[in-house]
Amino acid sequence: MTDDLAQRFRRLSRTIHDLQQAQGVLDWDQQTMMPRRGMTQRSRQLAALATVIHDKLTAPELGEVIAGLEGQGDGLDPLLAADLRELRRERDRAVRIPEELVAERARVCAEAQAAWEEAYERNSYPLFKPHLERVLDIVRRVTAALSASREGVGAYDLMLEEYEPGATEAQLRELFDGLGPTLSALLGRILDAPREGRPDRELLRGSFPIAAQERFLRQVIERMGFDFAAGRVDRSVHPFTAGTMHDVRITNRYREDYLAPAVFGMIHEAGHALYEQGLDPERYRDPAGGYCSLGIHESQSRLWENLVGRSRPFWSFHLPLLKQVFPALAPIDLDAFVGAINEVRPSLVRVDADEVTYNLHIVLRFRLESALLSGDLDVADLPGAWRDQTQELFGLQPATDREGALQDVHWSAGLFGYFPTYALGNLYGAQFLEAMRRDVTDLDERIAAGDLSPIKGWLNEKIHSQGRRYLAPELCERVTGAPLSPEPAIGHLERKYIALYKL
Amino acid sequence: MTDDLAQRFRRLSRTIHDLQQAQGVLDWDQQTMMPRRGMTQRSRQLAALATVIHDKLTAPELGEVIAGLEGQGDGLDPLLAADLRELRRERDRAVRIPEELVAERARVCAEAQAAWEEAYERNSYPLFKPHLERVLDIVRRVTAALSASREGVGAYDLMLEEYEPGATEAQLRELFDGLGPTLSALLGRILDAPREGRPDRELLRGSFPIAAQERFLRQVIERMGFDFAAGRVDRSVHPFTAGTMHDVRITNRYREDYLAPAVFGMIHEAGHALYEQGLDPERYRDPAGGYCSLGIHESQSRLWENLVGRSRPFWSFHLPLLKQVFPALAPIDLDAFVGAINEVRPSLVRVDADEVTYNLHIVLRFRLESALLSGDLDVADLPGAWRDQTQELFGLQPATDREGALQDVHWSAGLFGYFPTYALGNLYGAQFLEAMRRDVTDLDERIAAGDLSPIKGWLNEKIHSQGRRYLAPELCERVTGAPLSPEPAIGHLERKYIALYKL
Repeated sequence: MTDDLAQRFRRLSRTIHDLQQAQGVLDWDQQTMMPRRGMTQRSRQLAALATVIHDKLTAPELGEVIAGLEGQGDGLDPLLAADLRELRRERDRAVRIPEELVAERARVCAEAQAAWEEAYERNSYPLFKPHLERVLDIVRRVTAALSASREGVGAYDLMLEEYEPGATEAQLRELFDGLGPTLSALLGRILDAPREGRPDRELLRGSFPIAAQERFLRQVIERMGFDFAAGRVDRSVHPFTAGTMHDVRITNRYREDYLAPAVFGMIHEAGHALYEQGLDPERYRDPAGGYCSLGIHESQSRLWENLVGRSRPFWSFHLPLLKQVFPALAPIDLDAFVGAINEVRPSLVRVDADEVTYNLHIVLRFRLESALLSGDLDVADLPGAWRDQTQELFGLQPATDREGALQDVHWSAGLFGYFPTYALGNLYGAQFLEAMRRDVTDLDERIAAGDLSPIKGWLNEKIHSQGRRYLAPELCERVTGAPLSPEPAIGHLERKYIALYKL
Repeated sequence: MTDDLAQRFRRLSRTIHDLQQAQGVLDWDQQTMMPRRGMTQRSRQLAALATVIHDKLTAPELGEVIAGLEGQGDGLDPLLAADLRELRRERDRAVRIPEELVAERARVCAEAQAAWEEAYERNSYPLFKPHLERVLDIVRRVTAALSASREGVGAYDLMLEEYEPGATEAQLRELFDGLGPTLSALLGRILDAPREGRPDRELLRGSFPIAAQERFLRQVIERMGFDFAAGRVDRSVHPFTAGTMHDVRITNRYREDYLAPAVFGMIHEAGHALYEQGLDPERYRDPAGGYCSLGIHESQSRLWENLVGRSRPFWSFHLPLLKQVFPALAPIDLDAFVGAINEVRPSLVRVDADEVTYNLHIVLRFRLESALLSGDLDVADLPGAWRDQTQELFGLQPATDREGALQDVHWSAGLFGYFPTYALGNLYGAQFLEAMRRDVTDLDERIAAGDLSPIKGWLNEKIHSQGRRYLAPELCERVTGAPLSPEPAIGHLERKYIALYKL
């Protein structure tokens, strides 16, 4: 009987997976290939698919199958138990949010995003304020619906659960309370460093034909282990990675006058792509067979981008190759190049942030969105609170709300609880790399020899192939022997920047 | 109450349309963008979507809504009545074919296509024969299921209905019985024409960089009226057109050493594309708002490709532009060029066929598939029957089964009743052009001046915007004032080839 139930569970859950992947293809196409006027049609296709998936998730048959299997108790295969846990959570969320609320949220957020765009364009917070109030109201109603029979779970945790199951607001607060002041102090020391001989990103400016950048970067990600028979690379306005397993698609953007965006965008996205290509091929369609969490996903992109891709060993191999493609770089020596790609230039704009300031941006957003959701901070007071926080964390204040409370699109889209996954990615990535170094003792030598396979091999085994069998906190303990801690990230940054800036 | 039913009908039928369009995007992606290893995942996505669409088509709610509206009788809005007629047919077909039979057909045809590929590769009809028998068996079971409560409708007509509603085997037999001997006779006269000064396609061989071909052809289809904001052009192994309305995608193939395939492939596909872009934007998501039939679709591609794109006026404008792109063509004068693109070279391969022999290929296939389906022709006797037919129609015999009974993939895919739509396209196209000439009296002058807008304008109004409101036979009568006849096509070919070959 269990077997029959398990088969029904597999059939139902894999159909949902397949339809979600179809959504993913339509979404990728929209951002890369779709002609301009196709938007209305595409929205309808995606809405029809979303409704189909919602219907399948909330169907009574699936509820019965899940309940039947849960009734088997501890005798279940542990992988099936993990699949049950995941689909149970997804289904409960879908069942608890009434369809009208889903539709209303979509409408309110679409309007708020349009308003945000205009407010950003015109640098006018008052244009955005009523929309943010409406979004917050609907997010609160969503979390109220989700909290049914889950007394004691706070609104922020209920939002977080969608992106980072297993994480809590309390845990984030503790992490970020440690991280913020430490990074602020490091930033202060860097800014006070002697002017002379400082890292200078201007070295990366010049004239770099885009086709040549693409050719070079395809070789880089092939060396990382990206399988072009199971993926592709295209251009888009914002880099992203879509798809899974044997069809994983990276997009990247290029600037002819500046190398950094394309190089680190590509390595970052390839880190995401290797995760998806590295899932267990027998398991990737099952609820606990996909990626673990957004934080763990981001750990893969950040590990490759920052911990490998901005390291000296990586460029001791790759800089000569880059110079072959762009001979104008010939005069730059390895130390100057590594400095250039790691220059710290405090900016109040998150997407331009360097490795030191990036997490400070997340600490700021976490504090503010947590206070907005709890009601401790009023929407009217957000711009002022933003300024106070940047003063505290960066020692700087935004000149305008475009650099402040209007900076990101996320809140207008209802994405509360999403920002922390970016910082979690940095922390998990650093902790994973420490563990990798214990296993691969000649890691830097291998990287400097152009052999990146130990990195991919280790991540494939320890992280990728595990999928979502364990939630992120447990995965971290199993892989690194310790719970998530900010220390590895802080240690990495201090060692790196003390050397780079001769602190 | 009618209004409420009508609204429910619109909602249900448009959702089905939107999901079918999503299928179309996945299919296009598979043929143009998908990485090699993505096939298994994509098949599952498409299978999941096909099941969803089948479920929605056969859902009791839709049946009730259709029956309720049908019960209103003659008071219905005529457009709604046409929509009802179309979705009723589609639904009845879906309901009558049991799901197991759908699945079995998919499996048998997938195996038969694989077997056909190998048989074609090895030029071995015996490898294919048992599979063709299995396909025929399942096609007969499908038509048996479809014939429930439709006594007197033959198997061939039941197949034809899916591609060309309104057409019948008897009507095709009459058309093709007239067409076959006439074209055979014309072909004989052409082959007997004096050698000297004959059209010669070899003039189109040379070295034509593909990017330059693409640039030239983008301008050609822009002149035809293709809207690049509502479509795109890519490369693929076989040219095709996908999508509808504001997202219509052409693919084309290129040969560096020979201009003809890309030029006429592109004009052909753009003809299809203009049809889809020319649908009524208020109606295209409704069951009778899409294209009329495959034959009418093909009439659009053939009209543009052959009647316009291979005409003297068209090239009197475009040849000088082509010579700017490819200066090596400079010595070729207009008459020689028009001869080269219209050379008749009897070949036993359909896809290489010229305008005169193309329809003969279809006559042959119609006769054979009709006899196979009725049981008058045994699968074992197909190669011999093919040779007899080519002898009769072309005065030639295939040297091998690759040029004979193994030539096309269609039958292995279960596509019986599909081939005739190609010939119907030629006939409808010629009849439409005659009608267009009555309305646009200076058509050739306009084309020779590079102004193709009267063609698109006339087709938009008379054909495209009508969608499937009228079935093809009625559309033809309304547009041309007469039922479909082979005479316009025969007249066109005789006039053209008597002049070209000085018969």
